[in-house]
Amino acid sequence: MKSKYLHALPLSHISINDAYWNRYTKLIAAKAIPYQWGILNDRVTDTPPSYCLYNFRIAAGEISGERKGTEFLDSDAAKWLEAAAYCLASSPDAELEKNADDLIDLIGRAQCEDGYINTYFTLVEPERRWKNLTEGHELYCAGHLIEAAVAYYEVTGKTTLLRIASRFADLICKVFGPGETQLHGCPGHPEIELALVRLFDVTKESRYLNLAAYFVDVRGASPNYFLEEMARPGFRHMPSFHLVFNEPKDFDPSYSQSHLPVRVQNTAEGHAVRALYLYCAMADIAALRNDKALLNQCVRLWNNIVEKRMYITGSVGSSGFLERFTTDYDLPNDSNYSETCASIGLALFGLRLSRITKDASYIDTCELSLYNTVRAGISLEGSRYFYVNPLEVLPQNCMAHTSRAHVKPVRQKWFDVACCPTNIARTFSSLGQYIYSVNESENEKEVYVNLFISNNTKFEINGTQVELVLTTDYPRSGKISIEIKTGGTAFTLAVRIPSFAENFSILVNGEPADGSIIKGYYKIRRTWESGGGIDVSFGIVPHIVYANPLVCANCGKIAVVRGPEVYCFEEADNGTGLAAVFLSPNAVLTEEWNPDLFGGTMLIHCKGKKLVSSGTAASFSSTDKPHFEDITLTALPYGSWANRTPGEMIVWVHELMQKIA
Amino acid sequence: MKSKYLHALPLSHISINDAYWNRYTKLIAAKAIPYQWGILNDRVTDTPPSYCLYNFRIAAGEISGERKGTEFLDSDAAKWLEAAAYCLASSPDAELEKNADDLIDLIGRAQCEDGYINTYFTLVEPERRWKNLTEGHELYCAGHLIEAAVAYYEVTGKTTLLRIASRFADLICKVFGPGETQLHGCPGHPEIELALVRLFDVTKESRYLNLAAYFVDVRGASPNYFLEEMARPGFRHMPSFHLVFNEPKDFDPSYSQSHLPVRVQNTAEGHAVRALYLYCAMADIAALRNDKALLNQCVRLWNNIVEKRMYITGSVGSSGFLERFTTDYDLPNDSNYSETCASIGLALFGLRLSRITKDASYIDTCELSLYNTVRAGISLEGSRYFYVNPLEVLPQNCMAHTSRAHVKPVRQKWFDVACCPTNIARTFSSLGQYIYSVNESENEKEVYVNLFISNNTKFEINGTQVELVLTTDYPRSGKISIEIKTGGTAFTLAVRIPSFAENFSILVNGEPADGSIIKGYYKIRRTWESGGGIDVSFGIVPHIVYANPLVCANCGKIAVVRGPEVYCFEEADNGTGLAAVFLSPNAVLTEEWNPDLFGGTMLIHCKGKKLVSSGTAASFSSTDKPHFEDITLTALPYGSWANRTPGEMIVWVHELMQKIA
Repeated sequence: MKSKYLHALPLSHISINDAYWNRYTKLIAAKAIPYQWGILNDRVTDTPPSYCLYNFRIAAGEISGERKGTEFLDSDAAKWLEAAAYCLASSPDAELEKNADDLIDLIGRAQCEDGYINTYFTLVEPERRWKNLTEGHELYCAGHLIEAAVAYYEVTGKTTLLRIASRFADLICKVFGPGETQLHGCPGHPEIELALVRLFDVTKESRYLNLAAYFVDVRGASPNYFLEEMARPGFRHMPSFHLVFNEPKDFDPSYSQSHLPVRVQNTAEGHAVRALYLYCAMADIAALRNDKALLNQCVRLWNNIVEKRMYITGSVGSSGFLERFTTDYDLPNDSNYSETCASIGLALFGLRLSRITKDASYIDTCELSLYNTVRAGISLEGSRYFYVNPLEVLPQNCMAHTSRAHVKPVRQKWFDVACCPTNIARTFSSLGQYIYSVNESENEKEVYVNLFISNNTKFEINGTQVELVLTTDYPRSGKISIEIKTGGTAFTLAVRIPSFAENFSILVNGEPADGSIIKGYYKIRRTWESGGGIDVSFGIVPHIVYANPLVCANCGKIAVVRGPEVYCFEEADNGTGLAAVFLSPNAVLTEEWNPDLFGGTMLIHCKGKKLVSSGTAASFSSTDKPHFEDITLTALPYGSWANRTPGEMIVWVHELMQKIA
Repeated sequence: MKSKYLHALPLSHISINDAYWNRYTKLIAAKAIPYQWGILNDRVTDTPPSYCLYNFRIAAGEISGERKGTEFLDSDAAKWLEAAAYCLASSPDAELEKNADDLIDLIGRAQCEDGYINTYFTLVEPERRWKNLTEGHELYCAGHLIEAAVAYYEVTGKTTLLRIASRFADLICKVFGPGETQLHGCPGHPEIELALVRLFDVTKESRYLNLAAYFVDVRGASPNYFLEEMARPGFRHMPSFHLVFNEPKDFDPSYSQSHLPVRVQNTAEGHAVRALYLYCAMADIAALRNDKALLNQCVRLWNNIVEKRMYITGSVGSSGFLERFTTDYDLPNDSNYSETCASIGLALFGLRLSRITKDASYIDTCELSLYNTVRAGISLEGSRYFYVNPLEVLPQNCMAHTSRAHVKPVRQKWFDVACCPTNIARTFSSLGQYIYSVNESENEKEVYVNLFISNNTKFEINGTQVELVLTTDYPRSGKISIEIKTGGTAFTLAVRIPSFAENFSILVNGEPADGSIIKGYYKIRRTWESGGGIDVSFGIVPHIVYANPLVCANCGKIAVVRGPEVYCFEEADNGTGLAAVFLSPNAVLTEEWNPDLFGGTMLIHCKGKKLVSSGTAASFSSTDKPHFEDITLTALPYGSWANRTPGEMIVWVHELMQKIA
């Protein structure tokens, strides 16, 4: 079934060596993974203990103590393991592998007789297993464990964790399903659905795919499982959730996408990460089962997001409360969540849709998320993180105990709810999955080049070894060369031409190509000989983007973008009061390549105006007409913000018009 | 001591009969007070029971049941009583007085042996009396009870409630104070401080004033009483507050103005109502004790508010979480609290400062609050209320379970925390207190006219009866005539000339006056004879107000004001998409008096532009340059908004500049 759609190449076949991305891929292996390992083991002294492995050790009976931390804390270990697997795929590391194996053994020892794994429900409330799907995160944690197991197996070939996770998955398959004695519920936080598809992918056990599909379709069925569960005698809120829905009557089913069956949901609703993980599974199942209606539903939800509910930085979740979707065009800049994990979910969803539809426009959005929001999620030292990704920050307004308390002007060492750091780690260590998509169906062999990240990749197509050497300084320029080393084989090379590319040209073996663009990919079908290749060239120039006037927060505002990167203005370059910056859409945007800043950064300089008070300092005045002063502005990529002295930051600035005297 | 400062005239001496304000003063007596009485008695069938008097009945031992509602619910009864007293001051109402007397008797029966009154701590946690000053609201409720007692005594001469409240106050005087065996704390929610001053005012018992002063000065002393209290073994959060400060470590002393001693606080911090009630008491004590340092501190805090932390509508509390002050110039329009009660507190504080300083600029702000935010707090039918007063509303964005869930596009029947409805009732039924201030010191007799509200008022000055008959259609026009009926006596008539008055003229007995303006009051000193009087005339024209560019949400925006009224644009007149409205500061603002709308409303018409998308519906676009379309706009007073079909509303619109092609 799957062969109809594009698939990824194994990460171990892709060797990234890219000026732009080495800063992150090498950072994850060298800094983030060891730092996070220290956090999970409570060895980072200037940060409160995470209790993550501590809990597993108690569950394994190796130490005694009180289980601590959020009920979904186990998932941090799983996501770390998944990231570790991906790091091992690109470069062997005996110490890392030893740590991972030790952790896997620990998880194995913490597994219950019947296969169940969850330190919270094993240690704290064993009698309430599966009794709070709404908030309990058991299936969410299971999902991340399964993903880690699949990843670790795929990279190392080791089966210990896969067996552990499969035993757990088998238990879940017994507990949940349509049978009379089974529970007819689904997870409050989707994640296991896409994980079960991955487990199916390596095991080919159809029960996993069937359960994933069951979870997808039972969600939102009537009567609502979550509401019924909360109404049962003895239902108790999870410790972390008494703040969210204080009483069952306050519960909002859309928060967990259960307000309607997913097949009739036309807008992206509720908690953004939950939504996007769910949509990923929907896309997977649509592909594997050739379910056109479900695919159409995915496209409908995707379009609602990218057209009406997504920030220019590729982030989602407008509400400062519950990190959730709100309404069309509601995109406040300074009070939003725009959770890093939600952008990761968006990229995962877009990647799936690109593979099903062979449409490059989905990759445009993946790229937006990865180059801007996900990149902003981690410091250039690898050990500081953003959970929330605002587009406008006035540091003094990010006050504790106010409606902007969730917005931080500087990256944090860790979080009470620490989903993002390990999620960033697993995303950037598996960045290779985004670069290529391959079609190996019987009647068509295609290699899609999605992202322009220098790499050396080997794979087999038509039974022939092919090596691709992609070399570029993208996004500094739009020059990409792909050298093909092969004994000679025919396939279509499909190169994404980004929506922002200007005057693109493609040479094949030095001659103008005669392919054509289909859904954003320039497709060249030929027999490739060793030493051949293509040279892609397109202009990447800074330009102005206009906000839709329906976006209240941005009406009359413009932003500067360049290629996949959204730019922002920081206090370090531009002083304070950035909300008062006005920029003409005709302003000359001058590029400056600064090789010393953050390992090489393309800055953009321009002249603008700043609206300043003409006298009084009061917050409003009938007599004080503010006036414009000239200002020279410097913008830098949003993904690089907050790596210098903390200060103001802004993406959207006012469109400069001529003052009426 | 007090005679040095201006004071109010008894409400029973002031008879208001004003085209603009009758809509509210008569509404309170005819509709709001009976409606609220129904609510307090759980007789309003389409609203959940309040349990307010139900709790008192349990405490009085008359019914059995479980005490319900917030721990500060008793204060609703007290505020209703206070409002009832003010209503009785202007017009006798046997049924109302009977209800009030019955309630007073009920409260008396609910009073403990030792004088203590609080249904929560009496019925639910008797062992925790005075053990949670941080959140418990015992002293807050006591304060409102004392205010009600003073008001009821002043109006009716009846002493039952005054005796009840005094007994309670005496208990509090024993429990709190600097003595070794006393508690050295103060209320988490200030209110009793100003109430104790009022009690001192009628009883002349200095212990009440002393305790008020003690409460003021012990606040923020080191070590912090609240932090110590929360750290004590057995401390438990109040049911309503586990959402606010989840753990003692999360407690923010500035929330209750206890981060520093009040005498060294230079900015208005924390919960806005708490802050303003505290500042009122500080002003009272500064006046009564001739404490210049404390007065200066009040002025400093006032200036911080009105210059940097107040909305143009006279509201405060920028944070959507905890209804609190945030930072200078942080004034978001669509996610703020701007609680109705906070504007009431601001008016009470301003009135006090105007009386101490004889400076009319304080009244400008009182007027702003009363004419705009407090007026907006109640519907023109008297039974629907706003707790939150945004300056920009897109109804679909006021979603439950999001960061704008507190913002409502329509007034509500009641609230779980229902401080505002009864506060509006007591404010508008005591509106007379704002109209005049009188100086009867030995060497100076002055009558200050603060607000222009048609009324007939009798009082004695220099031992002579004086009757003032103020007639005006203000704010429709700035024509005010004051007829003076007296046997002949010398005093200074000081008429406030509002900051927005244009070309004012004053005639005395038909001849141009020869007085002068001192701190915003035009002062005419003469011997007034019966039949004499003055005619004040100034222009009230609509004009544009500019936002300070430091206010991020308003940079580049303007608003329309006319006299004391801020104007807004509603969907009912202007369609949707109001955030995209641009208005030239030079736009012709045309007045239209509509006698049929809300009992007479001055509308303002003007031409503006609306920025509209030129094509795509996506939230941002590099190709779609939005363009301007002409739009004819109609603005109405903010205080009258949301009295028609629910829809969008906006105060601040973009300043129209000329588009650069």
